[in-house]
Amino acid sequence: MNVLIVHAHPEPQSFCTAMKDRMVHLFESMGHTVAVSDLYAKSFNPVASASDFSDRSNRDYLVYALEQRHATKTGTLSDDIAAELDLLKQADLLILNFPIYWFSLPAILKGWIDRVFLSGVVYGGRNFYDRGLMRGKRAMLTFTLGGREHMFGPGSVHGPLNDLLKPVLQGSLGYAGFEVLEPFAAYHVPYISDEARQQTMLDLDVCIRGLDHRVSLPMPSLDHFDAQMNPIAGKPTA
Amino acid sequence: MNVLIVHAHPEPQSFCTAMKDRMVHLFESMGHTVAVSDLYAKSFNPVASASDFSDRSNRDYLVYALEQRHATKTGTLSDDIAAELDLLKQADLLILNFPIYWFSLPAILKGWIDRVFLSGVVYGGRNFYDRGLMRGKRAMLTFTLGGREHMFGPGSVHGPLNDLLKPVLQGSLGYAGFEVLEPFAAYHVPYISDEARQQTMLDLDVCIRGLDHRVSLPMPSLDHFDAQMNPIAGKPTA
Repeated sequence: MNVLIVHAHPEPQSFCTAMKDRMVHLFESMGHTVAVSDLYAKSFNPVASASDFSDRSNRDYLVYALEQRHATKTGTLSDDIAAELDLLKQADLLILNFPIYWFSLPAILKGWIDRVFLSGVVYGGRNFYDRGLMRGKRAMLTFTLGGREHMFGPGSVHGPLNDLLKPVLQGSLGYAGFEVLEPFAAYHVPYISDEARQQTMLDLDVCIRGLDHRVSLPMPSLDHFDAQMNPIAGKPTA
Repeated sequence: MNVLIVHAHPEPQSFCTAMKDRMVHLFESMGHTVAVSDLYAKSFNPVASASDFSDRSNRDYLVYALEQRHATKTGTLSDDIAAELDLLKQADLLILNFPIYWFSLPAILKGWIDRVFLSGVVYGGRNFYDRGLMRGKRAMLTFTLGGREHMFGPGSVHGPLNDLLKPVLQGSLGYAGFEVLEPFAAYHVPYISDEARQQTMLDLDVCIRGLDHRVSLPMPSLDHFDAQMNPIAGKPTA
């Protein structure tokens, strides 16, 4: 299996970075091939803009998705996007490893999605959710956060964590067609003991070794909607 | 009233940019003072990193929130963050105006939150949600998207739009203490007629003129949780 870990933490000595290293070693010891895209290390540019396109189909008015399609067709994708896209295409499993910032992705990682999840390659037209162009691949979030586990879930102060992560889990990974595995959360990381950190690493090992038995999150199916995305009577909706 | 519009669209001729201009003129005609932070125009850097801090409290290990507090105390915030923070402090109403990218904020705007919503200034310790340091201010999202209105809501293909926007609405604006108004959504923008676009602008006018009567979104209240954020028995939770 080819694994791509996209990693986004500004501190190389962080626990989050150690989780990335741990996963690399474990996957390799299991015989898998691992590629790492360390966004901070490569100073990845996360801003989708006109400067992503050297050969514009419309020089007077930028429609980002249309220029993505044009650049793909003409082979004029910017080098940094093309490199990430190659890694993504080769991956059977995509892992996004990051610290939670404001209940979502750090901007550098959000911009990786904005720029690399290309229209016409990753999704497009009616190719989304279970018809997304990444179908057949799996994806999982692994992250650290300051909050404690009891602060998430029904009736808790923040509500269920997967609800807060819905734009990533469903709106990005699921939309692109990935089978999305239950995330791995490392809670309360800045405040816990060394023993608790070691336990979290052991839990991560168990997660990685057991990926084939890890729960997938339910996603919408286009089978339940007509061409205009109206629900088809009698079909259950997600 | 002081209004701050943070705008994030890469195409100056876009409908989204026209929405920003329309709001500026309307607010000014109503006697309000408007500041605009146009993130693409100023090439705003959205990446939270060590280089945000010229005078580190800990040079060997970056904890971003702690360095935010140190930089605030020592007056060593980077100039770009300090400028945005000044605008934010002066604002009675914050509007984030943007195109939906992947059911959430474009990276350049996510990074504005990552870098400008400073620990100790915007939130911190137990100062979040209804004790957030931005309480007394209001905030609203105004955005464009490609999808149509019937694709959102219960039983629809994507589910309720405010559920997808929860990390921004609750997790960022609500967390910081803002009163968060119901968002203004301009649906299906790339595909609609000029007449429909004109109608959307008229709808936006009605929204802006009626802000004082616009619904606020329910947010968690810390009154319902103890110091460890366990629910207090008998109190309703959000």
